[in-house]
Amino acid sequence: MILKLKYNEHGLIPAIIQDVNSNEVLMLAYMNKTSLEKTIETGKTHFWSRSRQKYWMKGETSGNVQLVKKIFYDCDEDTLLIKVEQVGTGACHTGNRTCFYRIIKT
Amino acid sequence: MILKLKYNEHGLIPAIIQDVNSNEVLMLAYMNKTSLEKTIETGKTHFWSRSRQKYWMKGETSGNVQLVKKIFYDCDEDTLLIKVEQVGTGACHTGNRTCFYRIIKT
Repeated sequence: MILKLKYNEHGLIPAIIQDVNSNEVLMLAYMNKTSLEKTIETGKTHFWSRSRQKYWMKGETSGNVQLVKKIFYDCDEDTLLIKVEQVGTGACHTGNRTCFYRIIKT
Repeated sequence: MILKLKYNEHGLIPAIIQDVNSNEVLMLAYMNKTSLEKTIETGKTHFWSRSRQKYWMKGETSGNVQLVKKIFYDCDEDTLLIKVEQVGTGACHTGNRTCFYRIIKT
């Protein structure tokens, strides 16, 4: 299946990370085929950093790893939704539980 | 704020659409500055179709529009999370409630 997915012109697919318990959307990051394989093999989320052009595992420095519970793909096969158990204080490098802590419109 | 957001090289920003009541992630689609403005002005989600190279309002043909409740942006200002009330049977053109109806790993 991971071969059938539609990666963009940079070989990437966006992955929405959702808390499996609270259903809160925690973050969005990008995977390539290799980081998705690593995610499946290890059970921890791995991404491709576009700015640093390297692989990273969520929590590799903070310890706030994400334990993968379920991986969904969408109707047009170009987006992933990954339900995780978030270890530690949260997903965001700012210290917030979610990266989506600011609002445009209420 | 919508000027400060980081759009990609195609002028687009991904928008995660989440059901405000069930917290289910319904879909991901792309907005440019104009479609985000339309979304805020009308209170209904508007996107930019990369395949058709045109604006589209969710539900314009099906009637399954999305009423915008809250718009969040993430820590690095390159992703939107929009909480909506989903009108009708669902968000997916396949008839499913969510576009993420298929699973890779449980």
